[in-house]
Amino acid sequence: MTRKPWQGRFSGKTSNILERFSQSISFDRELFPQDIRGSIAHARMLGERGIIPKEDAAVIMDGLEKILADLEKGSQPWREDLEDVHMNIEALLGERVGEAAGRLHTGRSRNDQVALDFKLYVRETSGHVARDLLKLLEVLLKRAEEHFGILMPGYTHTQRAQPVLLSHHLMAYFEMFRRDHAEFAFLPANMEECPLGSGALAGAGFPIDRMMTARELGFSTVTRNSMDAVSDRDFAARFLFNAALCQIHLSRMAEEIVIWATSEFGFVTLPDAFSTGSSMMPQKKNPDPAELVRGKTGRTIGNLMSLLATLKGLPLTYNRDLQEDKEPLFDSAKTLLGSIEIMAGLMDSIGFNTRRLTEAAEDPLMLATDLADYLTLKGLPFRNAHEVTGKLVALCVERGCGLAALSLEEMRKHSGLIGEDIFGLLTPEASVAKRDIPGGTAPGQVRSAMEKAREWLETARRG
Amino acid sequence: MTRKPWQGRFSGKTSNILERFSQSISFDRELFPQDIRGSIAHARMLGERGIIPKEDAAVIMDGLEKILADLEKGSQPWREDLEDVHMNIEALLGERVGEAAGRLHTGRSRNDQVALDFKLYVRETSGHVARDLLKLLEVLLKRAEEHFGILMPGYTHTQRAQPVLLSHHLMAYFEMFRRDHAEFAFLPANMEECPLGSGALAGAGFPIDRMMTARELGFSTVTRNSMDAVSDRDFAARFLFNAALCQIHLSRMAEEIVIWATSEFGFVTLPDAFSTGSSMMPQKKNPDPAELVRGKTGRTIGNLMSLLATLKGLPLTYNRDLQEDKEPLFDSAKTLLGSIEIMAGLMDSIGFNTRRLTEAAEDPLMLATDLADYLTLKGLPFRNAHEVTGKLVALCVERGCGLAALSLEEMRKHSGLIGEDIFGLLTPEASVAKRDIPGGTAPGQVRSAMEKAREWLETARRG
Amino acid sequence: MTRKPWQGRFSGKTSNILERFSQSISFDRELFPQDIRGSIAHARMLGERGIIPKEDAAVIMDGLEKILADLEKGSQPWREDLEDVHMNIEALLGERVGEAAGRLHTGRSRNDQVALDFKLYVRETSGHVARDLLKLLEVLLKRAEEHFGILMPGYTHTQRAQPVLLSHHLMAYFEMFRRDHAEFAFLPANMEECPLGSGALAGAGFPIDRMMTARELGFSTVTRNSMDAVSDRDFAARFLFNAALCQIHLSRMAEEIVIWATSEFGFVTLPDAFSTGSSMMPQKKNPDPAELVRGKTGRTIGNLMSLLATLKGLPLTYNRDLQEDKEPLFDSAKTLLGSIEIMAGLMDSIGFNTRRLTEAAEDPLMLATDLADYLTLKGLPFRNAHEVTGKLVALCVERGCGLAALSLEEMRKHSGLIGEDIFGLLTPEASVAKRDIPGGTAPGQVRSAMEKAREWLETARRG
Amino acid sequence: MTRKPWQGRFSGKTSNILERFSQSISFDRELFPQDIRGSIAHARMLGERGIIPKEDAAVIMDGLEKILADLEKGSQPWREDLEDVHMNIEALLGERVGEAAGRLHTGRSRNDQVALDFKLYVRETSGHVARDLLKLLEVLLKRAEEHFGILMPGYTHTQRAQPVLLSHHLMAYFEMFRRDHAEFAFLPANMEECPLGSGALAGAGFPIDRMMTARELGFSTVTRNSMDAVSDRDFAARFLFNAALCQIHLSRMAEEIVIWATSEFGFVTLPDAFSTGSSMMPQKKNPDPAELVRGKTGRTIGNLMSLLATLKGLPLTYNRDLQEDKEPLFDSAKTLLGSIEIMAGLMDSIGFNTRRLTEAAEDPLMLATDLADYLTLKGLPFRNAHEVTGKLVALCVERGCGLAALSLEEMRKHSGLIGEDIFGLLTPEASVAKRDIPGGTAPGQVRSAMEKAREWLETARRG
Repeated sequence: MTRKPWQGRFSGKTSNILERFSQSISFDRELFPQDIRGSIAHARMLGERGIIPKEDAAVIMDGLEKILADLEKGSQPWREDLEDVHMNIEALLGERVGEAAGRLHTGRSRNDQVALDFKLYVRETSGHVARDLLKLLEVLLKRAEEHFGILMPGYTHTQRAQPVLLSHHLMAYFEMFRRDHAEFAFLPANMEECPLGSGALAGAGFPIDRMMTARELGFSTVTRNSMDAVSDRDFAARFLFNAALCQIHLSRMAEEIVIWATSEFGFVTLPDAFSTGSSMMPQKKNPDPAELVRGKTGRTIGNLMSLLATLKGLPLTYNRDLQEDKEPLFDSAKTLLGSIEIMAGLMDSIGFNTRRLTEAAEDPLMLATDLADYLTLKGLPFRNAHEVTGKLVALCVERGCGLAALSLEEMRKHSGLIGEDIFGLLTPEASVAKRDIPGGTAPGQVRSAMEKAREWLETARRG
Repeated sequence: MTRKPWQGRFSGKTSNILERFSQSISFDRELFPQDIRGSIAHARMLGERGIIPKEDAAVIMDGLEKILADLEKGSQPWREDLEDVHMNIEALLGERVGEAAGRLHTGRSRNDQVALDFKLYVRETSGHVARDLLKLLEVLLKRAEEHFGILMPGYTHTQRAQPVLLSHHLMAYFEMFRRDHAEFAFLPANMEECPLGSGALAGAGFPIDRMMTARELGFSTVTRNSMDAVSDRDFAARFLFNAALCQIHLSRMAEEIVIWATSEFGFVTLPDAFSTGSSMMPQKKNPDPAELVRGKTGRTIGNLMSLLATLKGLPLTYNRDLQEDKEPLFDSAKTLLGSIEIMAGLMDSIGFNTRRLTEAAEDPLMLATDLADYLTLKGLPFRNAHEVTGKLVALCVERGCGLAALSLEEMRKHSGLIGEDIFGLLTPEASVAKRDIPGGTAPGQVRSAMEKAREWLETARRG
Repeated sequence: MTRKPWQGRFSGKTSNILERFSQSISFDRELFPQDIRGSIAHARMLGERGIIPKEDAAVIMDGLEKILADLEKGSQPWREDLEDVHMNIEALLGERVGEAAGRLHTGRSRNDQVALDFKLYVRETSGHVARDLLKLLEVLLKRAEEHFGILMPGYTHTQRAQPVLLSHHLMAYFEMFRRDHAEFAFLPANMEECPLGSGALAGAGFPIDRMMTARELGFSTVTRNSMDAVSDRDFAARFLFNAALCQIHLSRMAEEIVIWATSEFGFVTLPDAFSTGSSMMPQKKNPDPAELVRGKTGRTIGNLMSLLATLKGLPLTYNRDLQEDKEPLFDSAKTLLGSIEIMAGLMDSIGFNTRRLTEAAEDPLMLATDLADYLTLKGLPFRNAHEVTGKLVALCVERGCGLAALSLEEMRKHSGLIGEDIFGLLTPEASVAKRDIPGGTAPGQVRSAMEKAREWLETARRG
Repeated sequence: MTRKPWQGRFSGKTSNILERFSQSISFDRELFPQDIRGSIAHARMLGERGIIPKEDAAVIMDGLEKILADLEKGSQPWREDLEDVHMNIEALLGERVGEAAGRLHTGRSRNDQVALDFKLYVRETSGHVARDLLKLLEVLLKRAEEHFGILMPGYTHTQRAQPVLLSHHLMAYFEMFRRDHAEFAFLPANMEECPLGSGALAGAGFPIDRMMTARELGFSTVTRNSMDAVSDRDFAARFLFNAALCQIHLSRMAEEIVIWATSEFGFVTLPDAFSTGSSMMPQKKNPDPAELVRGKTGRTIGNLMSLLATLKGLPLTYNRDLQEDKEPLFDSAKTLLGSIEIMAGLMDSIGFNTRRLTEAAEDPLMLATDLADYLTLKGLPFRNAHEVTGKLVALCVERGCGLAALSLEEMRKHSGLIGEDIFGLLTPEASVAKRDIPGGTAPGQVRSAMEKAREWLETARRG
C-alpha cells in the first residue's frame, strides 16, 4: 500500500476492502492518453504564466511525453496499488523527473482533471463512431447501387404490403445511420467547453489561463460555472443515448437479416465468414453476428439506464457516485464500434437471392392498393375504392389467384369504373413506377436518392 | 360498433376484447390539432394540384376548421367506438361535409399521417418546454442577482469543501438548464423533414406536392426515404431522453432543497404555498414539491426505457408496436412541464436564510485549501503543501478550533515558509476572492457571469 | 379549495399549481375498495378495544359500507379538490355520519394507511393475474392436445434445426407461463405482513390491536418495524418485475405468431376476430394483437425502471416520492391482464396450417443430427461424427437434395460405419421418436407431459 | 485460428472480426467450475448407462478433475483462440486424455450445457449473497443492541417528525435485508430443475438418465420441456432483479450515512478505514464507500434492464442473443457482494455521535403528535385535535420555543381539555414509550424485536 495524496489528516489507514472496492485503475487506465495530454497542456500554461518555473514545466512535459510513449507501446505496467489513472501517472512522473512532478497539480484538482479527461475521451470516441458509421453507410450505398432494379416485397406488420426496390429498402437504413452519423459528428455546446480550471468546485485559486489550455486541447471555449463543470456528466449521458439509439437501428437491420436468412424467406445467403455453425447440428448456418448485434442492444440500453439512475438526485457538486460514469460508457463505445464493424462486414458480403426476392415481389395481392388508387383517380372516393378492392381481394383469396387473373367482367360487377386499362397497372413494375415522388420507391426517385447520398457521403468523408 | 376503413376483405368481425385492447382514442385524441392541421394542408395541396376537385378541397378545409374549433372549445365529444383520433375526425368530417370527406385520404395512409401528427406534436412540445425553461432560468438568475454577495459552504461529497457565493451555486443550475434549453430549442435534422407523402411505406401513388404541405406545416424539407419515414421514431426517443435528463437536473436541485430545508441545515425556509403539512404531525412543513419532482424523475427515465425497448429489434416498416410511442411521450411532456413550473414557483418564493448560510461559510476548516495554496505559492510542491496542511487540520480537529486560531509559531513548526501574511488569507471572503478566473466564485467573476447570462436570457426570450 | 387536514400551522395557502401537481385523486381512486375495507377493519378494532366509543365505530362502519356500495355502483362522484382517495372518503364519511367520522383517523396515519391500501391492492391483483394465467394455460394445453402428432420444424437461431411436435412447441410456452403463475400465486413474506399500526413512522400511539385488523384483512401477521413498514415498496417492485417478465414471455410468443403469419412461413391463419386490416392496403390481414402485446412489453419494463429509479437513494422513512409508486403498477397490471386475455383469445382461435407445418418438417437437412448420432452410437467420437455429417450435408446443399437421397455408397466414402439401417432413421418421425427422454419431443414423452400438465391444471384451478 | 466444432459444412473461414466479436472466453471462463462439474456428472452417467465405454468415462472424469485443479490453482492458461469456456475445456481434455475426450459431448449440446452451467452458477451465487447478507444483518443487530436506549429524531420527508430509538432505526434496515436474504436463500421452482438432457432443443437422442445427473449436481428434478429449457433465462432475470432491489436498499442506507456525516447533522463519525480524503482539500473526510454503493445502484438497475431488453421478443428456442445473459449477471453479483461487504465494514466501525443524536431528539416540535393524541384521548375528534395542535405549534415557531414552554393557560385558550397532566407527556422519552405496540419504537417493543431477530439470525446462520 502506498501513501495517499490526502493522507495528511488521517491517522487510521484505509481498509483493504475499501481499497479494492473504490479503485478505478482497472478501467480508467483507458483514459491515459487524455490524462497525459491534459497534463501537458496544463504544465505548459503553468510555465508560460510563471505559476511554476518554466524549467520545471519543461521537465514535466518531457517526462509526460515519454510516459505516454511507453504506455502506448505497452511497455509500462500499471500499479494496482495506486487507486486511479491520475495517481499512476503522477507516480510515474515523480519517479522520472523527481521533485518537479509535485508542481503539476498546482491550480488543478482531480475533480476538474477527471472531468477534462472524460470529456476529451467522449469527444474523440464520438469522432470514431462517426467515422465508422461512414464505412457502414458506404457499404449500404454500394449494395443499393449494385442491386438497383431488383424488386422485393415491402412489408408492414411483417406482412407483404407493396412491392418496393431492394435498393429503396437498403436506403431506408442509410437514412437511419445518416441520422446517427449527424448526432455523433455534432458536438453539442457543453462538449465545446473545457472544464479545466474549475478546481475542486469553486475555481482554481491561481491566476491560470483557462483559454490557453482549452485551445491547446481543441476546445473552443471554457465552462462558465465551476460548480456545474465538476458535476456535469450530460455529455456522457448523451453519448450513451446516441449509442443506444444507433444500436437499436442496428438491431432492426439485424432482425431483418435473421428473418431473411430463414429457409422460409430465403432472401439472403449468409457468407461463411459471417455466420457460424452448430456443435450438434452439422447442417446449421446461423446468423450469429446479427443475433449478437441484436442481443447487445440490451446492454447499450442498460448502460444508459445505469448512468441516468446514478445521476438522479445527486446534490452538487462532485460526488464519488460519479466514478460510475466510465464503465458504462466504455462498454457502450466498444459494443457500438464492434457492432458497426460487424454489420458493415456482414452487409458487404451477404448474398441477396434476387430470384427469391423477385418471385416474392410478384405476389399479386400486393397490387390491391394500385387497384384502389385507380378507382380513386376515376372519381370514386377513396374509402369506397378501398371497399370495392377489398371485395375483389376476398374473391382472389378464395380462388387462390391474383387480381390480374380476374376477368374484366367480374371486376366490373363490383365497379363499373374499371376499364381495360386496369391490366397494364397490375404488375409490380407498374406499381413501383407509380410511386414517383421524392422519397418514393419509383426507380427514378431511388436512383436520384442514391446519387445525392453518394455526393453527401463523399463530402462527409472528406470531412 | 362501426364499420372499419379496412373491412372489405374480412368476413368475421373483430373481437370486442381486441377493440378495447387496440384502441388509441383514449390517448391519441391529444393529437387532434396536429391531425386537423395536417389534413387541411393535405386537402389544400390535393385541390391545388387537381388531384381532387378544388371545390371538394374547399369544403373539406372548411369542415375541418369547424371541427377544430369545436374540439378546442370542448363542445365536440369523442366516439370511443372509433378506434383512433384519425377515424374520429374523418367520421366527423363525413357527417358534416358528406361524400367529399371520402376524398381526403387520397394519396395518404394512416402510416404517414400518424408520423406527421406525432412529429408536429413533438416539435411544438419541444418549443413549449424551451419556453418554460426560460421562465425557470429567469427565476434562478433573479434570485442569484438578489443574493449577490452572500457566502455559503460549497460541498463535494456533501461535505463542506470551500466557501462559495450563493449566487455562484444558483448559477450552476442556470448552466444546467441552459443546456436543456439548447436541446429543446434545437430541432435536429429529422425534425425538419415532413414525412407526409410516404404513404403506407412505398410513397404515395399520386402526383402530390410534398414540399407544399411541408412548408405549410412549418417544415423546411421532406423525408428522403418513405420506408424509413413511416417507421422512424428517433425524434420521440430523443425528446424522451432530453426530458429525462432535464428532469434529472431538476431532481438534483430538488435534492438540495430537501437537504437545505432540514432543521439541521436550515439554509432555506419553505414558502407555505409550496410545502404541505402532515395529517398526523401538526408541526410538519414538508418539501413535497421537491420530493415529487425528484420522485417523478423515475417515470421520465422509465418512459425512455419503455420506448427504447419497444423499438429494439423491429423490422421495417410500420409495425403496430409503434402505437406504443405516444403514451410515454405524452406522460414525460406533462411531467416535465409540470415539474419546471413547480420548481420555478418554489425557487421564486423560497426563503434563503442568509444568516445560517453565512455562519456555515465561516467553518474555518474550509480554508485549508487556501493554506495549501499559500504554501505552494511560497515554493513548496503541491503534494507537500497538502501534507503540511493536513497535519495542521488534524491539530485543529483535535482542539475544535479553526486554522486562524493557531499561532504563527505552531504553524511554523510544520513549515518555516509560513509568515504573518497568512492571517489575511484565512477568511472566507479572502478565499472566495482568490478564485478569480472565468467560471470561478470570486465576486467579480460571478457578477460578470450573471451579466452575460442576463444578456443571453433577454436575447433568448426575444426568440 | 378545501381546508387541508394539516392546515393548522400554516398561514399562507397552497399554490394552485402545487394543488394540481401533487394531487393523486386522478389515479389513486382505484384504491377505494381497499381503502374502505381497511377503514372498516380499523374502526371495528377501535370500537372493540374501546379506543373510540363502540356506537361511533358502528356508525362509521355503516357509513363506510354505504359509501363503498355507492362507489361500486358509480353513483358517487369524486371531488377533484380533495387531494387523494383517503381525503375523499373521509369527507364523504363526514357528510354522512357527522362528527364520529373525525374519530376514524385515531391511531392511524396516512403513511400506514396508504401502505396498507396499496399492499392489499397488489395482493388482490396478483391473484387476478394468477387466475387469468390459468385461462391462458388451458388454451395452450387444449391446442397442444388437439394437435397432438403434428410435426413441425424446431428452430434455433431462427434456423430450422430438428423436427419437433407442434404440441411440444406449445407446451414450451405452457412451462413459461406456469412459472409466471407460480410467481403471482405465491405471496412473498412481506405480502403477508399488515403494515397498519405503524403510524406515521414510529408506531401508533394508541393501544390498538394490530393482529385483529391484520386477520380481518386476510394477512397472516403484522410488519415488524414501523419505520420500515411505511417506507417499504418491495412488494410493488416485485410485482412490476413479475409483470415485466411475464409480458416478455408473451412477447416471445407474439413474435412467433408474427413470423408464423407471414406469407413466407404460412404456419398459421389469423382469425378475423383477432387481426385487423389496413386503411390503405385492402388485402392486408395484420397480426395487430401480437404486435401490440410485443410492443407493450416496453411499457412494463419501463414501469419497473420507473419505480426502481424512484426508490434509489431515498432516506427513511416516508418520502413524498413514494406517491410515484402507484401509476406504474396500475399501468402494468392493466397491460398485463389485457395482454393475457388477448393472447388467450388469439391462441384459442388461431388456425394452424398443418399441411405447411408438416411439409416444412420434412426438410431433410434437419436429420443431420440423427446421422451424426448414428455414427456416434457406432463408435465414432462425437466430434468426428459431426465432421463426417457436415461433409455429407455440404454435398446435399450442393445438389439440392436431402440426406436420404444420397446413396449408401456415397455415404460410405465418408465413413465405413454407415450401413443399410441408416435409411430407416432418416425420417422426421424417426427423429422425433428417438428423443425419448423426459422433456424430449418423442410423442410418448409429450403425451405424458400433457397429461401431467392437465392434472396440475385441474388442481391449480380448484385452488 | 483453430478448427471449429462445426466446421464440417463450411468452405469459407470465419472472419477475424467475427471471431473477436463473438468470443465469450474473456468472460465465460468464470463458469469453469460449473462447466467441469457438469461434465463430470454427464460422463459418469454416460458410463453407468453404457452409452460410452465405462473406461472412457473414467478417463474423462479423471482428466476433468485434474483440469479443474489446475484451473483453480491458476496454473492453466486460457486460449483466446477457442471461442468459449466449453471449447477450452474440451480442448484441454483432448490434449490430456486423447480420443476419449471426443465422447464426452455424446447426448449433450452446447445449448443445454450452457443452460446448466449458468443455472448452477446462479444457484451458487445466490447462496453466497444470502450468506454475506447474514454478516451485514449481524452487524446491524449488534450496533442496534449496543446503542439500545439512545434517542434520535425519526424523519419523514427528511423533516424531523417524532423521536425514535436509534436501535429502531437500525432495525428498519435489518428488516429490509432480511427480506433480501429470504429472496436469495429461496430457490424458485425452475432453479430446482436441471436442464441437462434437453439437447440442442428437442431433447437428447440417447437414452441418458437425466435424474442421475440432476441429483449429482444438487437439483431436485429435471426441466419438463426441452425447448423451454434451452431458452429459459428467467432465473438470471430474477437474480438481477433481486440484486437491484437489494442494492437499492443499500443505497438508502448509504444516503443516510452521507447525510448523517455532514457537519450540519453530525450524527456519525466516519472511521478512517472507511472514508477517504481529498487531493485538493486537506481537511476533507469523505463518505466515499457510501457514495460508491449509492452510485453503483445504477449499474445493477442497468444490468437488469439490459437482460430484459435482450430477452424481449426472442422467438424459441436458443438464439445467440442469449450469450448476452452472462456479463450483466457477473457484474451485478460482483457489485452486490462488494457493496454488502463494504457496508458491513462501514456500519461495523462507524461512530454514532450519541450526544448529537440525543440533543436533536429533544427538538420539542416533534412532540406535537403527542399533544394531538392527548386531545384525542380526551374525546376531541382527531381532526380537531390536529387543528388545535397546529395552532399551538405556530405559536411556538413564532416564539422559537417548544410546546412544553407554553403555559397551561395559553394552551387552554385553544382547548379547555388540556390539563396539568400534559406536561408529563411532552418529553421525547414519554413520546417513545407511548408507541408501545408490536413494530413500534417503545423500548420494550424494540428490545423484543431485537431478541427475536437475534434468535432468527442464529437459526439462519446454522442454516
